[in-house]
Amino acid sequence: MADAQPNDFSLVAAIDLGSNSFHMVLARVDQGEIRILERLGEKVQLAAGLDDDNMLSDEAMQRGLDCLRRFAQLINGLPQGAVRIVGTNALREARNRGQFIRQVQQVLGHRVEVISGREEARLIFLGVSHTLADDEGKRLVVDIGGGSTEFIVGERFEPLLRESLSVGCVSFTRQFFSDGKITAARYSQAYTAARLELMNIEQAIQRLGWSEAVGASGTIRAVGQCIQAGGRGQGEVTREGLQWLKRRLLKAAHVDKLDMPGLKADRQPILPAGLAILEALFDALGVESMHHSEGALREGVLYDLLGRHSHEDVRERTLSALMERYHVDLEQAARVEAKAQKLLGKVDDAWQLVASKQAPLLTWAARVYEIGLDIAHSQYHKHGAYLIEHSDLPGFSRQDQQALALLVRGHRRNMPSADRLAEFGDEAVNLLRLCMILRLAILYHHIRGYQDMPEMAVEASQDALAVTFPDGWLEQNPLTQADFEREAQYWAKAGYRLTVR
Amino acid sequence: MADAQPNDFSLVAAIDLGSNSFHMVLARVDQGEIRILERLGEKVQLAAGLDDDNMLSDEAMQRGLDCLRRFAQLINGLPQGAVRIVGTNALREARNRGQFIRQVQQVLGHRVEVISGREEARLIFLGVSHTLADDEGKRLVVDIGGGSTEFIVGERFEPLLRESLSVGCVSFTRQFFSDGKITAARYSQAYTAARLELMNIEQAIQRLGWSEAVGASGTIRAVGQCIQAGGRGQGEVTREGLQWLKRRLLKAAHVDKLDMPGLKADRQPILPAGLAILEALFDALGVESMHHSEGALREGVLYDLLGRHSHEDVRERTLSALMERYHVDLEQAARVEAKAQKLLGKVDDAWQLVASKQAPLLTWAARVYEIGLDIAHSQYHKHGAYLIEHSDLPGFSRQDQQALALLVRGHRRNMPSADRLAEFGDEAVNLLRLCMILRLAILYHHIRGYQDMPEMAVEASQDALAVTFPDGWLEQNPLTQADFEREAQYWAKAGYRLTVR
Repeated sequence: MADAQPNDFSLVAAIDLGSNSFHMVLARVDQGEIRILERLGEKVQLAAGLDDDNMLSDEAMQRGLDCLRRFAQLINGLPQGAVRIVGTNALREARNRGQFIRQVQQVLGHRVEVISGREEARLIFLGVSHTLADDEGKRLVVDIGGGSTEFIVGERFEPLLRESLSVGCVSFTRQFFSDGKITAARYSQAYTAARLELMNIEQAIQRLGWSEAVGASGTIRAVGQCIQAGGRGQGEVTREGLQWLKRRLLKAAHVDKLDMPGLKADRQPILPAGLAILEALFDALGVESMHHSEGALREGVLYDLLGRHSHEDVRERTLSALMERYHVDLEQAARVEAKAQKLLGKVDDAWQLVASKQAPLLTWAARVYEIGLDIAHSQYHKHGAYLIEHSDLPGFSRQDQQALALLVRGHRRNMPSADRLAEFGDEAVNLLRLCMILRLAILYHHIRGYQDMPEMAVEASQDALAVTFPDGWLEQNPLTQADFEREAQYWAKAGYRLTVR
Repeated sequence: MADAQPNDFSLVAAIDLGSNSFHMVLARVDQGEIRILERLGEKVQLAAGLDDDNMLSDEAMQRGLDCLRRFAQLINGLPQGAVRIVGTNALREARNRGQFIRQVQQVLGHRVEVISGREEARLIFLGVSHTLADDEGKRLVVDIGGGSTEFIVGERFEPLLRESLSVGCVSFTRQFFSDGKITAARYSQAYTAARLELMNIEQAIQRLGWSEAVGASGTIRAVGQCIQAGGRGQGEVTREGLQWLKRRLLKAAHVDKLDMPGLKADRQPILPAGLAILEALFDALGVESMHHSEGALREGVLYDLLGRHSHEDVRERTLSALMERYHVDLEQAARVEAKAQKLLGKVDDAWQLVASKQAPLLTWAARVYEIGLDIAHSQYHKHGAYLIEHSDLPGFSRQDQQALALLVRGHRRNMPSADRLAEFGDEAVNLLRLCMILRLAILYHHIRGYQDMPEMAVEASQDALAVTFPDGWLEQNPLTQADFEREAQYWAKAGYRLTVR
């Protein structure tokens, strides 16, 4: 079959022949948007089948081929160019990789590329950039694989530094924990081996600097989940959590005796090595806290296949797609957005929101508050919040999505409840006030541009806001009057006074 | 402004100047689909302002105009023809209606039509037909208004009989319960007056026959809610419930002393009259149970405005719209639907589903099981179920939607839980088996037509099903093998044995 341009395909797939696991993502491409149809992953532990001469064992190759036969059925019939298969460290190292790759190509019917560590780093960063909040500031991304670990420092879509070290949780398990015993001495050896490798890159990374650390691999997710199951944090890896988990491991003394809620059985044997590598990189790079991101190598491969590496604003793209998909009244959204921005400025002396971290939420919420109408009019604010909370929204963090859902949920009827707000800690006050501004902008434009609205003066104080319409106007516009009277009752329940003249 | 064709408008509105309440619906028209933006309703009690000479009092007119001034702001600027305003019984009767209508037209800027009782009946039936399940069989629809009650017997979109009686809950309140006292004698007078009126139509209705009774007005909803709040039934009106409520009313002896949970304050004064009318019609027409439907006059007016009176299959239209909106892979859906139908036939000796009431659910579910993918791949079966459960789906009853959501939710991962199934009473077994058939059809087409699939023989018994592929095929197709092995575990948890060879 002749090669075709990737955008012509309705289905595309990426397969990642990792040193620890093989993964596949199958996606549909619909008007340039990627919709994931299926994710498959199996623990193959290819790297565990490398002997001291770097020869892949027959058993390891067999495990890999068995897995790929299952994958193969799903991509049967996809044209050349619609499937991209990448091999990483274990295949970089295996001297007999040629034999394995030939068999893989026979099973899958598509070409296998063994990519370099730096190319792997580039693709990982691309995957992560599409998944995380599109914030300013440099980001350190780390992917601890089975045979190698990739480090990238970059900003938005641009990787500034890409490094790959031959440090991996499968290879380190083979070297230091092959019989499953966990002792302080072995842990220390693994830690030191990782630190030695890290010396090659730590200065360069520290010189560049970064403001956020993100982990994009199963090891980092598993460690975060163990720490969370132990009652520490929300899934992020912290120094204190690492120390706690290390004590648990040493106390268990053997991987078979690890009784960690939240840890999958197949992760158990490689946890000690993964933890030692993670602790070493926290120390070497001065990381205090690292959170996990879903987007990784295979997502990067997909985006690369579709030619998406630009500095496009992911969030803008995501919001536009949402608005289009759920048939938002674009003119109404633009009116509400402009009014909300104006109001934000007018109350800034009292509420100081313009420069706050939460300010962008107001713009976003103004664009999407009506999406739930597409499901049903009844309770549409709740449907909108459901969509925001559960959709894949590239460019938005989980926290962003939750805060945005809060505003959409609270744009009519009751204000966000105190309980719900409390989950946002010290952001709660700002979120409630943003919600109030959003509601005012929506009430002001209740009649959707079919009536010219007069100037509305507003004045805010700590817990009150006064709205003034031109003399006599309110009496002639009884819907607006009724709207604002009802609104004042909702504000009162939230402890704020709204007066309207 | 010149008249334009209704389909050119992006916004349309219907206003219903009822004898008890005024209502407005504002909707957007998007590719022929109606999306409700806003519903407003206010209790105006126009009929209460009619004196013995059928003159509307100034106060009643004032109440009406005050309400309409609030409505007016929302339809300001809508072109002629995009707003339809209908007046019903109170305006049919008011001798000074001309004066009121002139003022209304001044406030709203659109023409008011006072429609006949039979036209009102036609529009009510149109609204109800768009809202209820599009089942075969004749349907009796009753709308108890403030000044008149409409009766329609029809099938699907076709009204076969339309009648209107001058019996209404506001006019009867004025006649029999004007000081709020509730006595057995007064109740009996109201009941008898209604029975007398009903004598004009009861024979014709009974001759025609009907299989389902539906109430489309606030009175019927309120009575159903009172009965439900009293722990009787799920909101439908039954004979037993009517008797229970009547005893409560007589015991309270005055409308101010009615302490009914679930009853809105503004419904309180007109409940005794409404109940007497309802009891009379149950007796006259031999109704045993009546459920409430949301669609009513104003929805009918909207659909009429858009020219929707055909015998189109509402359910087909609804499903197609869902599939399009959520980008369902149409070819895949067609494959799964065809396979599911085939399987249904093959297991019919053992499971007898083909002729069951639930059988159509399988077809519907095959078309929409993937809609949740549009939100996110993760947990997409749950998102799909959320959409099915909360969307306005014309042509489907609430029960249909819930059963369909159950199948969509259960199409992958765990089967519907025993608790969830129990809510469906004696339909539970059929639903679980339909779910199993759906899952088999989906697994069979897991690879989306990129591979020709061989014949799959199935044989069912009471709690087991055996699937047989051609000799050796399964070994060559390890994904299918793995799929069915995992599937057998899910069946086992639900108490069924799935064997695959």
